[in-house]
Amino acid sequence: MVNYQEFFSGDAQLMQYSAIRRMARISTQPGIISFSAGAPNEETFPAGEIGVIISSVLASEGKTALQYGLTLGFGGLVDAIVDFCLKRGISSVTSEQIAITSGSQQGLDLIGRLMIDPGDVVFFELPSYIGAISAFRNLQATLIEVRQAEDGFVIEELITRIEQSRRSGKRAKLIYVIPNFQNPSGVTLSLRKRQQLLEVAEKYDLLIVEDDPYGEVYFDPGLLEQLTPIKSFDREGRVLYISTFSKILAPGLRTGWIVAPKQIIEKLDIAKQATDLCGSMLDQRIVAECLRRGIIQKHLPSIREFYRAKCQVMLDSLKCFMPSEVRWTRPMGGLFLWVTLPATLNSEEILYSCLEHQKVAYVIGRPFHVNGEGANTLRLAFCKENEDNIRVGIERLARVFKSYLE
Amino acid sequence: MVNYQEFFSGDAQLMQYSAIRRMARISTQPGIISFSAGAPNEETFPAGEIGVIISSVLASEGKTALQYGLTLGFGGLVDAIVDFCLKRGISSVTSEQIAITSGSQQGLDLIGRLMIDPGDVVFFELPSYIGAISAFRNLQATLIEVRQAEDGFVIEELITRIEQSRRSGKRAKLIYVIPNFQNPSGVTLSLRKRQQLLEVAEKYDLLIVEDDPYGEVYFDPGLLEQLTPIKSFDREGRVLYISTFSKILAPGLRTGWIVAPKQIIEKLDIAKQATDLCGSMLDQRIVAECLRRGIIQKHLPSIREFYRAKCQVMLDSLKCFMPSEVRWTRPMGGLFLWVTLPATLNSEEILYSCLEHQKVAYVIGRPFHVNGEGANTLRLAFCKENEDNIRVGIERLARVFKSYLE
Repeated sequence: MVNYQEFFSGDAQLMQYSAIRRMARISTQPGIISFSAGAPNEETFPAGEIGVIISSVLASEGKTALQYGLTLGFGGLVDAIVDFCLKRGISSVTSEQIAITSGSQQGLDLIGRLMIDPGDVVFFELPSYIGAISAFRNLQATLIEVRQAEDGFVIEELITRIEQSRRSGKRAKLIYVIPNFQNPSGVTLSLRKRQQLLEVAEKYDLLIVEDDPYGEVYFDPGLLEQLTPIKSFDREGRVLYISTFSKILAPGLRTGWIVAPKQIIEKLDIAKQATDLCGSMLDQRIVAECLRRGIIQKHLPSIREFYRAKCQVMLDSLKCFMPSEVRWTRPMGGLFLWVTLPATLNSEEILYSCLEHQKVAYVIGRPFHVNGEGANTLRLAFCKENEDNIRVGIERLARVFKSYLE
Repeated sequence: MVNYQEFFSGDAQLMQYSAIRRMARISTQPGIISFSAGAPNEETFPAGEIGVIISSVLASEGKTALQYGLTLGFGGLVDAIVDFCLKRGISSVTSEQIAITSGSQQGLDLIGRLMIDPGDVVFFELPSYIGAISAFRNLQATLIEVRQAEDGFVIEELITRIEQSRRSGKRAKLIYVIPNFQNPSGVTLSLRKRQQLLEVAEKYDLLIVEDDPYGEVYFDPGLLEQLTPIKSFDREGRVLYISTFSKILAPGLRTGWIVAPKQIIEKLDIAKQATDLCGSMLDQRIVAECLRRGIIQKHLPSIREFYRAKCQVMLDSLKCFMPSEVRWTRPMGGLFLWVTLPATLNSEEILYSCLEHQKVAYVIGRPFHVNGEGANTLRLAFCKENEDNIRVGIERLARVFKSYLE
């Protein structure tokens, strides 16, 4: 028979099935309280309103909604996104600086393909988003770690790493950052550090990939100024801003976008053309119409409150049940928080015990670390379970952790 | 400011904006009779039935249809595709051998990424599909040409090219073929050559990428046996079969699929996960439900007749109006036919004259040739215009060609 291994490319040889996805499967078994799934809660999807919109889209422009469309996206949605960006403080955006993508994951992948040759360096926080790690790792990028403080990137360490990688002769290209309520840690990059990050990029001639899927899911409107996108300070065109409607409308519609300098969007157009010709035109029209009718904007306060309340219950439960040796982050928004166990404990080993004996699940922290660290860390998603289950689940977790600490 | 050129990867440096897309834009100006657009005719989309289906999908499973789904595709659609493949003669397919993609273009791109390192060889017919040429060229593949006869690939030349590329030390990996009513030529690979192509792949240890977007759009059911997929003869697992619902349902729904050995689908799952997490779940449910209710199957006879009638009008018009020096193919299905002018004429030069003086458009043939030949060729798509326009447009074209031949 055929030896497929001999046919696989260098990229493909390195690709590995994610341990997280394997465990995510286990943790979706019935009866398990799951803090592992990172998907937004289906209760937040405005399914009824989407149904009404689809009927009207099909009635008024059914034929074009079912036809191929522009590679960079449906013009009506591009224009609506220009407005949406302005409201986030990203001013002077034009439609030529926008590409619609099949979720923000496609944005990460396309940017990687445009920028990364094998060995090129991308800087990642410890921990950082697995989807970005996979996208860049699959292109044989060199992923360099920078520690994360309570207010994000340790800037001095970033500078050290940049200088180290320069001396090593590698080409440092990108800094990857999720400034708001990071997946997985829930940490928010401080306003001062947003500006510092941009200064570092300018000084060392790097680009920043600013991934902002959760920016609208903040818990306290009083903190809004702190969430100003790095892109809004960007005068030289160093920031490639990525976002998505997955967390504030519905992920199954697969609609994200990139804001980037025109020269990069033009190249991205060519790359995307060969990748999928265009995204789902029906999905894009639905999202455009949701924006035009103000459905997303109207739903945002309830989505924020929905996740805020769940987060609060989880924080209260952690405080109530966890042994003193366990630490966790206190997110200002998003879907996740991050737990650090004493260094002697291994969250993967403990997870099997949690699943088997207590029917509770989380995601282990190590795969979020580009340098293989983090064996004593884990991510808790507070998006899926109801408040009672959150309390019960955290109590169960605490019970298992205590048993390992004895 | 930033010098983006220094950031672009080797792949990106080579990507170029397609001349065809530039010209396609010109040819969509109002008043122009266009034989250039290769999109299926919107009249064939069952928009009303799709509307009914969406309502029922949203009512019965709205929340999950709007949620993330499996990377390899919605299970209900995968199962329906297993059946669909069986009816095409691809027997012993299991759901583990199928991946749903965002149109067949994503299938081409993912296969390229799994298989191609810079310099690896892919064999293409002269002419062949531009989307496949772009997908593989963007990965820095070496594209080697093989002439096309009236019944497809010149097998002896393919063998010569394979042996040449072996001697040159390059790694020959893939043979790319569109067996049915090829885009752009309209040529169909004969049954005997389908088997020969597979024998060649076996002998020289190559894989075949069988791209079959038009297989259902045949004009004469009596010829069906000739259209047996190469995949149906494949015992060693050498054929990666790609198809799509774009031509027989609606391309805006972006739903294609790959049939390939399980080991390749597993790798593709990992690659696709980092590419887009999953495709549009709403689109996939719509297509699944269209298959379950028999809507696609019911529409196929009328789609076939729709394009057959247009093709016949174009063939009759060509016969009636064209000067004797001009030759063209007689397709048994699909959306396209192929015109060859005397070698002294340049179809790109003539196109500007057609657009300006006669308001008629086609696609130039050179970009479909991986070796830069084909300056005297062009593609005519008979899918868009009505029968009157086809007659008038061909008459106008003939007028311009004659003026160049004088």
